[in-house]
Amino acid sequence: MTTRIELAVLPAEAHAVEADCYVVVDVLRATTTIATLLDAGATFVIAADREALARSVAAERNALLFGEIGGLPPPGFDGGNSPLEAREAAVAGRDVVLFTTNGTRALAGLASRATVLAGALANATAVARAASTFERVCIVCAGEGHGRRFALEDFAAAAVILRHILAASPSAEPGDAAGLAIETARYDDWLRSGLPQQTAASARLIAGSEHGRALVRLGLSGDVQFCALEDTADAVPVVTGWGEGWAQLRAT
Amino acid sequence: MTTRIELAVLPAEAHAVEADCYVVVDVLRATTTIATLLDAGATFVIAADREALARSVAAERNALLFGEIGGLPPPGFDGGNSPLEAREAAVAGRDVVLFTTNGTRALAGLASRATVLAGALANATAVARAASTFERVCIVCAGEGHGRRFALEDFAAAAVILRHILAASPSAEPGDAAGLAIETARYDDWLRSGLPQQTAASARLIAGSEHGRALVRLGLSGDVQFCALEDTADAVPVVTGWGEGWAQLRAT
Repeated sequence: MTTRIELAVLPAEAHAVEADCYVVVDVLRATTTIATLLDAGATFVIAADREALARSVAAERNALLFGEIGGLPPPGFDGGNSPLEAREAAVAGRDVVLFTTNGTRALAGLASRATVLAGALANATAVARAASTFERVCIVCAGEGHGRRFALEDFAAAAVILRHILAASPSAEPGDAAGLAIETARYDDWLRSGLPQQTAASARLIAGSEHGRALVRLGLSGDVQFCALEDTADAVPVVTGWGEGWAQLRAT
Repeated sequence: MTTRIELAVLPAEAHAVEADCYVVVDVLRATTTIATLLDAGATFVIAADREALARSVAAERNALLFGEIGGLPPPGFDGGNSPLEAREAAVAGRDVVLFTTNGTRALAGLASRATVLAGALANATAVARAASTFERVCIVCAGEGHGRRFALEDFAAAAVILRHILAASPSAEPGDAAGLAIETARYDDWLRSGLPQQTAASARLIAGSEHGRALVRLGLSGDVQFCALEDTADAVPVVTGWGEGWAQLRAT
Protein backbone atom coordinates (compact mmCIF):
# COMPACT_ATOMS: atom_id res chain seq x y z
CA MET A 1 0.00 0.00 0.00
CA THR A 2 1.44 3.34 -1.07
CA THR A 3 1.23 6.13 1.50
CA ARG A 4 3.27 8.80 -0.27
CA ILE A 5 3.49 9.38 -4.03
CA GLU A 6 5.96 11.83 -5.51
CA LEU A 7 6.81 12.85 -9.04
CA ALA A 8 10.32 14.13 -9.82
CA VAL A 9 10.28 16.54 -12.77
CA LEU A 10 13.98 15.85 -13.50
CA PRO A 11 16.36 13.07 -12.42
CA ALA A 12 18.24 15.55 -10.20
CA GLU A 13 15.06 16.16 -8.21
CA ALA A 14 14.69 12.43 -7.53
CA HIS A 15 17.93 12.49 -5.55
CA ALA A 16 16.22 14.87 -3.11
CA VAL A 17 13.26 12.49 -2.64
CA GLU A 18 13.31 9.65 -0.10
CA ALA A 19 11.49 6.70 -1.62
CA ASP A 20 11.30 2.91 -1.41
CA CYS A 21 10.71 2.58 -5.14
CA TYR A 22 11.65 4.83 -8.05
CA VAL A 23 9.85 4.38 -11.38
CA VAL A 24 12.01 5.89 -14.13
CA VAL A 25 10.07 7.08 -17.19
CA ASP A 26 11.83 7.81 -20.49
CA VAL A 27 8.81 7.17 -22.67
CA LEU A 28 10.45 8.35 -25.95
CA ARG A 29 11.82 5.77 -26.20
CA ALA A 30 14.17 3.98 -23.79
CA THR A 31 11.80 2.65 -21.13
CA THR A 32 9.17 1.79 -23.75
CA THR A 33 11.84 -0.19 -25.64
CA ILE A 34 13.10 -1.89 -22.46
CA ALA A 35 9.59 -2.98 -21.42
CA THR A 36 8.91 -4.22 -24.95
CA LEU A 37 12.20 -6.16 -25.18
CA LEU A 38 11.59 -7.93 -21.86
CA ASP A 39 7.98 -8.59 -22.80
CA ALA A 40 9.25 -10.21 -26.00
CA GLY A 41 11.35 -12.59 -23.93
CA ALA A 42 14.79 -10.96 -23.69
CA THR A 43 16.61 -12.32 -20.62
CA PHE A 44 18.39 -9.12 -19.60
CA VAL A 45 18.50 -5.61 -21.02
CA ILE A 46 21.69 -3.73 -20.26
CA ALA A 47 21.23 0.01 -20.79
CA ALA A 48 24.52 1.83 -21.45
CA ASP A 49 25.04 5.57 -21.89
CA ARG A 50 28.23 5.47 -24.03
CA GLU A 51 28.56 3.88 -27.45
CA ALA A 52 31.96 2.25 -26.78
CA LEU A 53 30.69 0.75 -23.52
CA ALA A 54 27.55 -0.54 -25.26
CA ARG A 55 29.62 -2.19 -27.99
CA SER A 56 32.07 -3.84 -25.57
CA VAL A 57 29.35 -5.16 -23.24
CA ALA A 58 27.44 -6.54 -26.24
CA ALA A 59 30.58 -8.32 -27.46
CA GLU A 60 31.36 -9.73 -23.97
CA ARG A 61 27.86 -11.07 -23.43
CA ASN A 62 27.17 -12.11 -27.01
CA ALA A 63 24.17 -9.79 -26.76
CA LEU A 64 22.12 -8.05 -29.41
CA LEU A 65 22.88 -4.33 -29.72
CA PHE A 66 20.12 -1.75 -30.00
CA GLY A 67 20.32 2.00 -29.61
CA GLU A 68 20.49 5.43 -31.12
CA ILE A 69 22.58 8.45 -31.90
CA GLY A 70 20.41 11.43 -32.84
CA GLY A 71 17.40 9.11 -32.96
CA LEU A 72 18.87 6.52 -35.35
CA PRO A 73 20.96 3.32 -34.84
CA PRO A 74 24.73 3.65 -35.44
CA PRO A 75 26.38 1.34 -38.02
CA GLY A 76 26.64 -2.31 -36.95
CA PHE A 77 23.73 -2.15 -34.49
CA ASP A 78 21.01 -4.80 -34.62
CA GLY A 79 18.24 -2.27 -34.10
CA GLY A 80 17.37 1.27 -33.04
CA ASN A 81 16.08 2.52 -29.68
CA SER A 82 12.78 1.47 -31.17
CA PRO A 83 9.93 -0.41 -29.51
CA LEU A 84 8.54 -1.33 -32.93
CA GLU A 85 11.83 -2.98 -33.88
CA ALA A 86 12.08 -4.52 -30.40
CA ARG A 87 8.70 -6.15 -30.84
CA GLU A 88 9.64 -7.70 -34.18
CA ALA A 89 13.19 -8.80 -33.31
CA ALA A 90 14.12 -12.34 -32.28
CA VAL A 91 15.15 -11.46 -28.71
CA ALA A 92 13.67 -14.41 -26.77
CA GLY A 93 16.33 -15.91 -24.53
CA ARG A 94 18.91 -13.31 -25.58
CA ASP A 95 20.56 -10.45 -23.71
CA VAL A 96 20.14 -7.04 -25.32
CA VAL A 97 22.36 -4.00 -24.85
CA LEU A 98 20.54 -0.69 -25.35
CA PHE A 99 22.65 2.40 -26.00
CA THR A 100 20.73 5.47 -24.74
CA THR A 101 21.61 8.36 -22.45
CA ASN A 102 18.84 10.01 -20.40
CA GLY A 103 17.03 6.90 -19.20
CA THR A 104 20.24 5.04 -18.43
CA ARG A 105 21.58 7.76 -16.18
CA ALA A 106 18.39 7.96 -14.17
CA LEU A 107 18.15 4.15 -13.87
CA ALA A 108 21.79 3.73 -12.79
CA GLY A 109 21.92 6.85 -10.63
CA LEU A 110 19.06 5.83 -8.35
CA ALA A 111 19.76 2.10 -8.09
CA SER A 112 21.93 2.38 -4.97
CA ARG A 113 19.05 4.08 -3.12
CA ALA A 114 16.04 1.80 -3.57
CA THR A 115 14.22 -0.52 -5.96
CA VAL A 116 14.24 1.01 -9.46
CA LEU A 117 11.64 0.06 -12.07
CA ALA A 118 11.39 1.19 -15.70
CA GLY A 119 7.96 2.60 -16.55
CA ALA A 120 6.23 3.71 -19.72
CA LEU A 121 2.71 3.84 -21.09
CA ALA A 122 3.50 0.46 -22.66
CA ASN A 123 3.53 -1.15 -19.19
CA ALA A 124 1.58 1.50 -17.24
CA THR A 125 -0.84 -0.88 -15.53
CA ALA A 126 1.79 -3.53 -14.78
CA VAL A 127 4.43 -1.14 -13.41
CA ALA A 128 1.84 0.70 -11.31
CA ARG A 129 0.70 -2.60 -9.81
CA ALA A 130 4.32 -3.43 -8.89
CA ALA A 131 5.01 0.06 -7.51
CA SER A 132 1.81 0.02 -5.44
CA THR A 133 3.35 -2.59 -3.14
CA PHE A 134 5.89 0.00 -1.88
CA GLU A 135 5.10 2.63 0.77
CA ARG A 136 6.94 5.63 -0.70
CA VAL A 137 6.95 5.77 -4.49
CA CYS A 138 8.67 8.37 -6.68
CA ILE A 139 8.00 8.48 -10.43
CA VAL A 140 11.00 10.05 -12.17
CA CYS A 141 10.88 11.95 -15.47
CA ALA A 142 14.15 11.11 -17.25
CA GLY A 143 14.07 14.35 -19.28
CA GLU A 144 16.14 15.45 -22.27
CA GLY A 145 19.67 16.73 -22.83
CA HIS A 146 21.39 14.35 -20.40
CA GLY A 147 18.53 14.80 -17.98
CA ARG A 148 18.97 18.56 -17.66
CA ARG A 149 15.77 19.54 -19.53
CA PHE A 150 12.16 18.80 -18.61
CA ALA A 151 10.44 16.49 -21.11
CA LEU A 152 6.68 16.89 -21.56
CA GLU A 153 6.26 13.33 -22.83
CA ASP A 154 7.78 11.86 -19.65
CA PHE A 155 5.53 13.98 -17.45
CA ALA A 156 2.47 12.89 -19.46
CA ALA A 157 3.33 9.20 -19.11
CA ALA A 158 4.27 9.61 -15.45
CA ALA A 159 0.85 11.15 -14.82
CA VAL A 160 -0.87 8.05 -16.21
CA ILE A 161 1.21 5.70 -14.02
CA LEU A 162 0.56 7.96 -11.03
CA ARG A 163 -3.20 7.75 -11.54
CA HIS A 164 -3.05 3.96 -11.60
CA ILE A 165 -1.10 3.97 -8.32
CA LEU A 166 -3.57 6.41 -6.74
CA ALA A 167 -6.46 4.22 -7.89
CA ALA A 168 -4.90 1.34 -5.91
CA SER A 169 -3.92 3.56 -2.93
CA PRO A 170 -6.43 6.44 -2.86
CA SER A 171 -5.18 7.75 0.48
CA ALA A 172 -1.56 8.15 -0.71
CA GLU A 173 -0.39 11.70 -0.07
CA PRO A 174 0.79 13.38 -3.31
CA GLY A 175 3.77 15.73 -3.47
CA ASP A 176 3.71 19.02 -5.38
CA ALA A 177 4.51 17.75 -8.88
CA ALA A 178 2.19 14.79 -8.34
CA GLY A 179 -0.51 17.37 -7.57
CA LEU A 180 0.17 19.07 -10.89
CA ALA A 181 -0.17 15.72 -12.68
CA ILE A 182 -3.53 15.15 -10.98
CA GLU A 183 -4.65 18.64 -12.11
CA THR A 184 -3.67 17.84 -15.71
CA ALA A 185 -5.58 14.57 -15.53
CA ARG A 186 -8.74 16.36 -14.43
CA TYR A 187 -8.62 18.48 -17.58
CA ASP A 188 -8.23 15.33 -19.65
CA ASP A 189 -11.24 13.72 -17.93
CA TRP A 190 -13.35 16.72 -18.77
CA LEU A 191 -12.16 16.86 -22.38
CA ARG A 192 -12.83 13.19 -22.97
CA SER A 193 -16.18 13.14 -21.18
CA GLY A 194 -17.50 15.77 -23.57
CA LEU A 195 -15.71 14.49 -26.66
CA PRO A 196 -15.49 10.70 -26.51
CA GLN A 197 -13.31 10.56 -29.65
CA GLN A 198 -10.80 12.99 -28.13
CA THR A 199 -7.25 11.67 -28.00
CA ALA A 200 -5.98 11.04 -24.46
CA ALA A 201 -3.94 13.93 -23.06
CA SER A 202 -0.94 11.61 -22.77
CA ALA A 203 -0.95 10.83 -26.51
CA ARG A 204 -1.56 14.47 -27.41
CA LEU A 205 1.24 15.74 -25.14
CA ILE A 206 3.67 13.06 -26.36
CA ALA A 207 2.99 13.94 -30.01
CA GLY A 208 3.29 17.66 -29.21
CA SER A 209 6.51 17.42 -27.18
CA GLU A 210 9.74 18.74 -28.67
CA HIS A 211 11.24 15.26 -28.69
CA GLY A 212 8.10 13.72 -30.23
CA ARG A 213 8.13 16.25 -33.06
CA ALA A 214 11.87 15.67 -33.63
CA LEU A 215 11.31 11.92 -33.95
CA VAL A 216 8.48 12.48 -36.44
CA ARG A 217 10.84 14.65 -38.51
CA LEU A 218 13.27 11.68 -38.55
CA GLY A 219 10.50 9.48 -40.01
CA LEU A 220 9.81 7.72 -36.69
CA SER A 221 6.13 8.60 -36.26
CA GLY A 222 5.31 4.88 -35.94
CA ASP A 223 7.47 4.70 -32.83
CA VAL A 224 5.94 7.87 -31.38
CA GLN A 225 2.43 6.48 -31.86
CA PHE A 226 3.42 3.15 -30.35
CA CYS A 227 4.97 4.84 -27.30
CA ALA A 228 1.62 6.57 -26.68
CA LEU A 229 -0.28 3.26 -26.46
CA GLU A 230 -1.09 1.93 -22.99
CA ASP A 231 -0.56 -1.62 -21.79
CA THR A 232 1.04 -3.23 -24.82
CA ALA A 233 3.41 -5.07 -22.42
CA ASP A 234 3.09 -6.88 -19.08
CA ALA A 235 6.80 -6.79 -18.27
CA VAL A 236 7.96 -4.78 -15.25
CA PRO A 237 11.69 -4.11 -15.75
CA VAL A 238 13.65 -3.91 -12.50
CA VAL A 239 17.29 -2.86 -12.13
CA THR A 240 19.36 -5.83 -10.90
CA GLY A 241 22.87 -4.45 -11.46
CA TRP A 242 24.46 -1.10 -12.22
CA GLY A 243 27.67 0.85 -12.49
CA GLU A 244 29.10 4.03 -13.96
CA GLY A 245 26.96 4.63 -17.04
CA TRP A 246 25.08 1.34 -17.17
CA ALA A 247 22.14 -0.49 -15.59
CA GLN A 248 21.04 -4.09 -16.06
CA LEU A 249 17.34 -4.91 -15.99
CA ARG A 250 15.23 -8.06 -16.08
CA ALA A 251 11.50 -8.62 -15.79
CA THR A 252 10.28 -8.97 -12.19
CA MET B 1 8.76 40.84 -29.30
CA THR B 2 9.29 37.40 -27.79
CA THR B 3 9.98 34.58 -30.25
CA ARG B 4 10.78 31.78 -27.81
CA ILE B 5 9.27 31.25 -24.36
CA GLU B 6 10.59 28.62 -21.98
CA LEU B 7 9.71 27.61 -18.46
CA ALA B 8 12.38 26.04 -16.25
CA VAL B 9 10.83 23.71 -13.66
CA LEU B 10 13.87 24.07 -11.36
CA PRO B 11 16.74 26.61 -11.22
CA ALA B 12 19.17 23.91 -12.45
CA GLU B 13 17.14 23.55 -15.64
CA ALA B 14 17.44 27.28 -16.35
CA HIS B 15 21.21 26.89 -16.68
CA ALA B 16 20.56 24.62 -19.68
CA VAL B 17 18.32 27.26 -21.34
CA GLU B 18 19.75 30.03 -23.54
CA ALA B 19 17.71 33.16 -22.92
CA ASP B 20 17.98 36.94 -23.12
CA CYS B 21 15.83 37.42 -20.02
CA TYR B 22 15.19 35.15 -17.04
CA VAL B 23 12.15 35.82 -14.85
CA VAL B 24 12.73 34.18 -11.46
CA VAL B 25 9.55 33.23 -9.59
CA ASP B 26 9.59 32.44 -5.87
CA VAL B 27 5.99 33.37 -5.25
CA LEU B 28 5.91 32.12 -1.60
CA ARG B 29 7.25 34.58 -0.74
CA ALA B 30 10.57 36.09 -1.81
CA THR B 31 9.74 37.56 -5.21
CA THR B 32 6.33 38.72 -4.00
CA THR B 33 8.05 40.48 -1.10
CA ILE B 34 10.74 42.01 -3.36
CA ALA B 35 8.15 43.39 -5.81
CA THR B 36 6.12 44.76 -2.91
CA LEU B 37 9.13 46.40 -1.22
CA LEU B 38 10.20 48.14 -4.43
CA ASP B 39 6.62 49.13 -5.17
CA ALA B 40 6.50 50.71 -1.70
CA GLY B 41 9.51 52.85 -2.59
CA ALA B 42 12.52 50.92 -1.34
CA THR B 43 15.64 52.04 -3.26
CA PHE B 44 17.37 48.67 -3.44
CA VAL B 45 16.53 45.20 -2.19
CA ILE B 46 19.55 43.01 -1.50
CA ALA B 47 18.56 39.35 -1.31
CA ALA B 48 21.04 37.25 0.69
CA ASP B 49 20.97 33.50 1.26
CA ARG B 50 22.87 33.36 4.58
CA GLU B 51 21.80 34.96 7.83
CA ALA B 52 25.29 36.27 8.75
CA LEU B 53 25.72 37.82 5.31
CA ALA B 54 22.27 39.41 5.51
CA ARG B 55 23.06 40.95 8.91
CA SER B 56 26.46 42.29 7.85
CA VAL B 57 25.18 43.81 4.59
CA ALA B 58 22.28 45.42 6.47
CA ALA B 59 24.72 46.93 8.99
CA GLU B 60 27.08 48.22 6.24
CA ARG B 61 24.31 49.84 4.22
CA ASN B 62 22.19 51.01 7.15
CA ALA B 63 19.44 48.97 5.57
CA LEU B 64 16.27 47.48 6.99
CA LEU B 65 16.48 43.72 7.52
CA PHE B 66 13.66 41.39 6.49
CA GLY B 67 13.65 37.63 6.17
CA GLU B 68 12.83 34.23 7.52
CA ILE B 69 14.09 31.06 9.09
CA GLY B 70 11.47 28.31 8.91
CA GLY B 71 8.95 30.89 7.71
CA LEU B 72 9.45 33.38 10.57
CA PRO B 73 11.80 36.37 11.10
CA PRO B 74 14.87 35.71 13.27
CA PRO B 75 15.42 37.92 16.39
CA GLY B 76 16.44 41.50 15.63
CA PHE B 77 14.92 41.57 12.16
CA ASP B 78 12.68 44.47 11.10
CA GLY B 79 10.22 42.15 9.36
CA GLY B 80 9.60 38.70 7.94
CA ASN B 81 9.81 37.51 4.35
CA SER B 82 6.29 38.88 4.26
CA PRO B 83 4.66 40.96 1.53
CA LEU B 84 1.99 42.09 4.01
CA GLU B 85 4.67 43.45 6.34
CA ALA B 86 6.56 44.89 3.37
CA ARG B 87 3.49 46.84 2.30
CA GLU B 88 3.02 48.36 5.73
CA ALA B 89 6.66 49.13 6.54
CA ALA B 90 8.27 52.56 6.11
CA VAL B 91 10.68 51.51 3.36
CA ALA B 92 10.48 54.51 1.02
CA GLY B 93 13.98 55.72 0.22
CA ARG B 94 15.58 52.92 2.23
CA ASP B 95 17.62 49.89 1.24
CA VAL B 96 16.22 46.57 2.43
CA VAL B 97 18.15 43.33 2.92
CA LEU B 98 15.99 40.21 2.49
CA PHE B 99 17.30 36.95 3.94
CA THR B 100 15.87 34.05 1.92
CA THR B 101 17.40 31.03 0.18
CA ASN B 102 15.70 29.58 -2.92
CA GLY B 103 14.88 32.81 -4.73
CA THR B 104 18.26 34.38 -3.95
CA ARG B 105 20.21 31.49 -5.43
CA ALA B 106 18.21 31.53 -8.66
CA LEU B 107 18.49 35.34 -8.95
CA ALA B 108 22.25 35.42 -8.31
CA GLY B 109 23.03 32.26 -10.25
CA LEU B 110 21.57 33.49 -13.53
CA ALA B 111 22.66 37.13 -13.38
CA SER B 112 25.95 36.59 -15.24
CA ARG B 113 24.05 35.11 -18.20
CA ALA B 114 21.37 37.65 -19.08
CA THR B 115 18.89 40.19 -17.68
CA VAL B 116 17.23 38.75 -14.57
CA LEU B 117 13.84 39.98 -13.35
CA ALA B 118 11.92 38.95 -10.22
CA GLY B 119 8.35 37.87 -11.01
CA ALA B 120 5.31 37.00 -8.95
CA LEU B 121 1.56 37.22 -9.27
CA ALA B 122 1.88 40.55 -7.45
CA ASN B 123 3.58 42.06 -10.51
CA ALA B 124 2.45 39.56 -13.19
CA THR B 125 1.25 42.11 -15.74
CA ALA B 126 4.17 44.49 -15.20
CA VAL B 127 6.92 41.86 -15.31
CA ALA B 128 5.36 40.20 -18.37
CA ARG B 129 5.31 43.57 -20.15
CA ALA B 130 9.02 44.05 -19.37
CA ALA B 131 9.94 40.48 -20.37
CA SER B 132 8.00 40.76 -23.65
CA THR B 133 10.61 43.18 -24.97
CA PHE B 134 13.20 40.34 -25.03
CA GLU B 135 13.43 37.75 -27.80
CA ARG B 136 14.14 34.62 -25.75
CA VAL B 137 12.48 34.55 -22.33
CA CYS B 138 12.81 31.86 -19.67
CA ILE B 139 10.56 31.87 -16.60
CA VAL B 140 12.32 30.09 -13.74
CA CYS B 141 10.59 28.28 -10.88
CA ALA B 142 12.80 28.85 -7.81
CA GLY B 143 11.55 25.69 -6.10
CA GLU B 144 11.97 24.45 -2.55
CA GLY B 145 14.75 22.88 -0.50
CA HIS B 146 17.58 25.03 -1.86
CA GLY B 147 16.05 24.80 -5.31
CA ARG B 148 16.25 21.02 -5.48
CA ARG B 149 12.49 20.35 -5.25
CA PHE B 150 9.75 21.40 -7.65
CA ALA B 151 7.30 23.91 -6.12
CA LEU B 152 3.72 23.85 -7.38
CA GLU B 153 3.11 27.46 -6.35
CA ASP B 154 5.99 28.73 -8.50
CA PHE B 155 4.76 26.78 -11.51
CA ALA B 156 1.24 28.17 -11.03
CA ALA B 157 2.49 31.76 -10.88
CA ALA B 158 4.92 31.19 -13.78
CA ALA B 159 1.99 29.96 -15.87
CA VAL B 160 0.12 33.23 -15.32
CA ILE B 161 3.16 35.33 -16.32
CA LEU B 162 3.69 33.08 -19.35
CA ARG B 163 0.12 33.64 -20.52
CA HIS B 164 0.58 37.40 -20.33
CA ILE B 165 3.76 37.15 -22.43
CA LEU B 166 2.04 34.90 -24.97
CA ALA B 167 -0.84 37.38 -25.20
CA ALA B 168 1.69 40.06 -26.21
CA SER B 169 3.66 37.69 -28.49
CA PRO B 170 1.20 35.06 -29.72
CA SER B 171 3.67 33.56 -32.19
CA ALA B 172 6.32 32.88 -29.54
CA GLU B 173 7.33 29.21 -29.66
CA PRO B 174 6.81 27.50 -26.27
CA GLY B 175 9.21 24.89 -24.88
CA ASP B 176 8.00 21.67 -23.24
CA ALA B 177 7.29 22.92 -19.72
CA ALA B 178 5.71 26.07 -21.17
CA GLY B 179 3.42 23.73 -23.12
CA LEU B 180 2.41 22.06 -19.86
CA ALA B 181 1.61 25.45 -18.35
CA ILE B 182 -0.59 26.28 -21.35
CA GLU B 183 -2.39 22.94 -20.88
CA THR B 184 -3.01 23.72 -17.22
CA ALA B 185 -4.37 27.13 -18.17
CA ARG B 186 -6.86 25.59 -20.60
CA TYR B 187 -8.33 23.57 -17.75
CA ASP B 188 -8.61 26.70 -15.67
CA ASP B 189 -10.39 28.54 -18.50
CA TRP B 190 -12.92 25.75 -18.74
CA LEU B 191 -13.44 25.58 -14.99
CA ARG B 192 -13.99 29.31 -14.68
CA SER B 193 -16.19 29.62 -17.77
CA GLY B 194 -18.65 27.13 -16.24
CA LEU B 195 -18.30 28.34 -12.67
CA PRO B 196 -17.71 32.09 -12.61
CA GLN B 197 -17.15 32.09 -8.85
CA GLN B 198 -14.44 29.43 -9.15
CA THR B 199 -11.10 30.42 -7.67
CA ALA B 200 -8.35 30.87 -10.26
CA ALA B 201 -6.17 27.77 -10.67
CA SER B 202 -3.15 29.81 -9.55
CA ALA B 203 -4.74 30.67 -6.18
CA ARG B 204 -6.01 27.13 -5.71
CA LEU B 205 -2.64 25.56 -6.54
CA ILE B 206 -0.76 28.04 -4.31
CA ALA B 207 -3.05 27.30 -1.36
CA GLY B 208 -2.76 23.55 -2.02
CA SER B 209 1.02 23.46 -2.43
CA GLU B 210 3.13 21.88 0.31
CA HIS B 211 4.77 25.23 1.06
CA GLY B 212 1.43 27.06 1.08
CA ARG B 213 -0.02 24.61 3.59
CA ALA B 214 3.11 24.86 5.76
CA LEU B 215 2.81 28.67 5.88
CA VAL B 216 -0.86 28.40 6.86
CA ARG B 217 0.14 26.08 9.71
CA LEU B 218 2.56 28.83 10.87
CA GLY B 219 -0.36 31.27 10.98
CA LEU B 220 0.65 33.03 7.76
CA SER B 221 -2.51 32.48 5.74
CA GLY B 222 -2.78 36.24 5.15
CA ASP B 223 0.54 36.17 3.32
CA VAL B 224 -0.47 33.11 1.28
CA GLN B 225 -3.68 34.83 0.20
CA PHE B 226 -1.84 38.03 -0.65
CA CYS B 227 0.74 36.15 -2.73
CA ALA B 228 -2.13 34.70 -4.81
CA LEU B 229 -3.43 38.16 -5.77
CA GLU B 230 -2.50 39.49 -9.21
CA ASP B 231 -1.19 42.95 -9.98
CA THR B 232 -0.94 44.48 -6.53
CA ALA B 233 2.40 46.05 -7.61
CA ASP B 234 3.75 47.81 -10.70
CA ALA B 235 7.41 47.37 -9.78
CA VAL B 236 9.59 45.21 -12.02
CA PRO B 237 12.63 44.20 -9.95
CA VAL B 238 15.81 43.76 -12.01
CA VAL B 239 19.12 42.38 -10.74
CA THR B 240 21.78 45.12 -10.87
CA GLY B 241 24.54 43.44 -8.86
CA TRP B 242 25.32 39.99 -7.56
CA GLY B 243 27.90 37.74 -5.94
CA GLU B 244 28.23 34.49 -4.04
CA GLY B 245 24.90 34.14 -2.24
CA TRP B 246 23.48 37.58 -2.88
CA ALA B 247 21.70 39.65 -5.55
CA GLN B 248 20.86 43.36 -5.53
CA LEU B 249 17.65 44.51 -7.21
CA ARG B 250 16.03 47.82 -8.02
CA ALA B 251 12.85 48.72 -9.91
CA THR B 252 13.37 49.11 -13.67
